[in-house]
Amino acid sequence: MPTEPSAAPARPRPGGRTARTRTRVLDAVLAELTEHGYDALTVDAVAARAGVHRATVYRRWRDVGGLLADLFAAAADLDWTPADTGSLRADLAALGREIQDSLTAEPSIAVALIALSFRSADAARALRQLWADRYRQCEVIVERAIARGDLRPDTDARALLIAATAPVYHECVLLRLPPDPALPERAAEAAACAAEAGVFAR
Amino acid sequence: MPTEPSAAPARPRPGGRTARTRTRVLDAVLAELTEHGYDALTVDAVAARAGVHRATVYRRWRDVGGLLADLFAAAADLDWTPADTGSLRADLAALGREIQDSLTAEPSIAVALIALSFRSADAARALRQLWADRYRQCEVIVERAIARGDLRPDTDARALLIAATAPVYHECVLLRLPPDPALPERAAEAAACAAEAGVFAR
Repeated sequence: MPTEPSAAPARPRPGGRTARTRTRVLDAVLAELTEHGYDALTVDAVAARAGVHRATVYRRWRDVGGLLADLFAAAADLDWTPADTGSLRADLAALGREIQDSLTAEPSIAVALIALSFRSADAARALRQLWADRYRQCEVIVERAIARGDLRPDTDARALLIAATAPVYHECVLLRLPPDPALPERAAEAAACAAEAGVFAR
Repeated sequence: MPTEPSAAPARPRPGGRTARTRTRVLDAVLAELTEHGYDALTVDAVAARAGVHRATVYRRWRDVGGLLADLFAAAADLDWTPADTGSLRADLAALGREIQDSLTAEPSIAVALIALSFRSADAARALRQLWADRYRQCEVIVERAIARGDLRPDTDARALLIAATAPVYHECVLLRLPPDPALPERAAEAAACAAEAGVFAR
């Protein structure tokens, strides 16, 4: 998921003891945020929940700001790439489903980061960067469609990707509607249809 | 603005002394929320800022919850109707511009209500209701296009309206991009184009 600050692909990969500690600590941050909210977030509560020595958490993350910054860093997941299905519609639909899944996960890292962005200017900046990176990672979907001759070469990739994904965010995050399983496909189809008609030409 | 919990049309109309007091108090609530945030919001701060007797504010609104509920009630503005320009594209573009203006106003009631909805379950419920009402008020745009023979009669009005407006919310509220003056027209054109191709047929 592009625009997606979240979910499984965002978790630090299993590795040594340090990596496992990080996973446990960041899972604890997310659980605390989801259950008790930003106001109640403390290093001590995170350490207790993670079952990690307080001294370790203070040494490595220093404070709540350090924990949140690392939650965003873990979510950035620079290795993530969008699915390559061979068609624009199916690539966009797969992306939309991944976003919808990440927004409706319990707990959802994505929704926690969005909520945080309304509380803290640092979090808002980190989320803006994360989204810029994810949309950039997704531009390949449009480049492939252009290479196949399915779209005009001057198609604005970002505008097309936003059209295809915005309805999923809007319904899940702002309108808070129950997830509509047909939505990712419909939004993908609408955006692809408009792109083919040249609506996103620069 | 449909989905729009905000801006000028949402203000209580001028009227007697009671109406003027309400306007001053709700303006003060918005200013306090925008400048100091939800955590700092108190009835006393609102009364002081509005220049209204504390006793009046406590009697009429009781507490912070009462003030916020009235802010949502004022934003509901049941008399609002979308512009009727004679064409689907122009109606949708006018709607998108109204939303964009309300989200980029300083201060923005719409953004304040959205931020609140991540803090309080009551606010989230009130905003969900407000949005449901606004999208319902906008369905007439689609009904007019169907009556003109521009769209199939089985077009899902809500899905079309969400496609046309979601990119504006996404860029302004979640991605926090500077307002793109071409966005409302582009989103309107993309949604209209997809609707004419039957993408939003039920």
